Amino acid sequence: MNIGLDIMGGDFAPLEAVKGLHLFMNEHVSPANFVLFGDEEKVRPLLEQFNVNAPNISVVHAPQVIEMNEHPTKALKEKQQSSIAVGFYALAKGKIDAFISAGNTGAMLVGAMYSIKAIEGILRPTISTIIPKQDGTAGLLLDVGLNADCKPEHLNQFAILGSLYSKYILGIENPKVGLVNIGEEEGKGNILAQGTYPLLKENNQINFVGNIEGRDIFIDKADVMVCEGFTGNVILKMAESFYEITHQKGIRHEYLEQFNFENYGGTPVLGVSKPVIIGHGISHAKAFMNMIKLAAKMIDSKFLDKMQESFKS
Amino acid sequence: MNIGLDIMGGDFAPLEAVKGLHLFMNEHVSPANFVLFGDEEKVRPLLEQFNVNAPNISVVHAPQVIEMNEHPTKALKEKQQSSIAVGFYALAKGKIDAFISAGNTGAMLVGAMYSIKAIEGILRPTISTIIPKQDGTAGLLLDVGLNADCKPEHLNQFAILGSLYSKYILGIENPKVGLVNIGEEEGKGNILAQGTYPLLKENNQINFVGNIEGRDIFIDKADVMVCEGFTGNVILKMAESFYEITHQKGIRHEYLEQFNFENYGGTPVLGVSKPVIIGHGISHAKAFMNMIKLAAKMIDSKFLDKMQESFKS
Repeated sequence: MNIGLDIMGGDFAPLEAVKGLHLFMNEHVSPANFVLFGDEEKVRPLLEQFNVNAPNISVVHAPQVIEMNEHPTKALKEKQQSSIAVGFYALAKGKIDAFISAGNTGAMLVGAMYSIKAIEGILRPTISTIIPKQDGTAGLLLDVGLNADCKPEHLNQFAILGSLYSKYILGIENPKVGLVNIGEEEGKGNILAQGTYPLLKENNQINFVGNIEGRDIFIDKADVMVCEGFTGNVILKMAESFYEITHQKGIRHEYLEQFNFENYGGTPVLGVSKPVIIGHGISHAKAFMNMIKLAAKMIDSKFLDKMQESFKS
Repeated sequence: MNIGLDIMGGDFAPLEAVKGLHLFMNEHVSPANFVLFGDEEKVRPLLEQFNVNAPNISVVHAPQVIEMNEHPTKALKEKQQSSIAVGFYALAKGKIDAFISAGNTGAMLVGAMYSIKAIEGILRPTISTIIPKQDGTAGLLLDVGLNADCKPEHLNQFAILGSLYSKYILGIENPKVGLVNIGEEEGKGNILAQGTYPLLKENNQINFVGNIEGRDIFIDKADVMVCEGFTGNVILKMAESFYEITHQKGIRHEYLEQFNFENYGGTPVLGVSKPVIIGHGISHAKAFMNMIKLAAKMIDSKFLDKMQESFKS
């Protein structure tokens, strides 16, 4: 397995990306080869410094960097020698089996959608986030911002994608699917939620448990929580800010610590034909390590095959 | 001023409602008269017990109670002797100047919409919630569930209503209005947010500061945060659950204590022609006291006149 890593992506790259790789290699025995995309002159000395100059690591020189504030489509077009553009090219050509970056999120999404495309039958790829539950388990919320306007059939597909991820990656047998809504009973909610409920109810690929409300997001009522990307993005950023604010105020507790996104690393783009993992711009070593772990798991578990089978018509 | 209180509304009524009234009368010198709607046989002994049998308190006998799980419209129609139905009748007839209840929220909303109606020019009355900010100030989020599907012109009116409330009730001079969105720049968001931004920008009745994201909800970026009722309801219930979960886990901090909804009491229905305040079903004495304070403030500040003036065509 060949895991591609954008070594220039993120506010603290390449240093933290290299440190993350170092952490991974210290803590895991993996047969993976690593292909690092970035400025060779900057990367090589760091690899030596952190002693991760093993034969299973190669560097593909990509001298350009897409900055965080650049327009995704424009940047990808104009910076064809950027680590993200070169990485996606390698992914599309099969030189790598997964691609990880904590760089410009928009460029990563555009790259995922246009260089490797969606799995056949999937209307809209989606991004998710792990939501730590009160009881210590991990819930999955999707979509968290890729699809701001959705139709019921999109949410129905997100429910399937989320269930597969919950089962094969998070290890939850028969994950419970909940529809994020503003009331418990069927018939509650906005037009989208009202239209989605019957589809989820009739969907025999998932274990639908009904509506969940804002108060249920952090409790173990559903393992997979489905909504359009507007609400999901607001929930995600609110949850992140809870952590930040309590942390800043010196409030410490193991429960709050679960909200530290570094524990989860990054989010995969679900529904595209190869594993693509997008990290937070402010990722540090631990987040990079966890993204590498996730990529390895997605490859190992043949997760892409599971998605393809589920959407085969 | 005559303040009407549904003494039977809420999970812990009439006891906590009476205790709330007791608290208010002990802590405040107010010229208000109170009209209590409820079962006289149950209420009178409690009034004696808590020594709130003053001449400025009268009881209007309303032997029926609309339970929490009843269908609002049906219950209001069938239980015309219920405390909520009798209370709204008194409000519509001008016997009371404000009506407070912690009873069936749906019945309160239906009552507000059909017995006293919307202020002329207001397309959709709305409900809001106080959001405690990191720096100790109070933000206002609206709509939080009354209007699950909205158009840009509705959100534009919510921005005005929220600004008036923030200014005259919360005491914030020139309140900053933010549009809840999933990106900072103009043009970001779902179709609704994209359509709303230009209206807010051109609205000279408000101080629009642009988009705010989920991470900004708890920080002092905007005093008035505008969204449709689906997202708003999810935010509200998440914030409440965050308090509950941390509380249950024994995490104590003055910042978290601000999330205790009892501090705020209830939410007014903004945009209807008289003050109507809806409390949480699980309201205790403090929440009732705060709802009474709010009703008095809305009457004192001539808040309804301010709304009427703002929407005069």
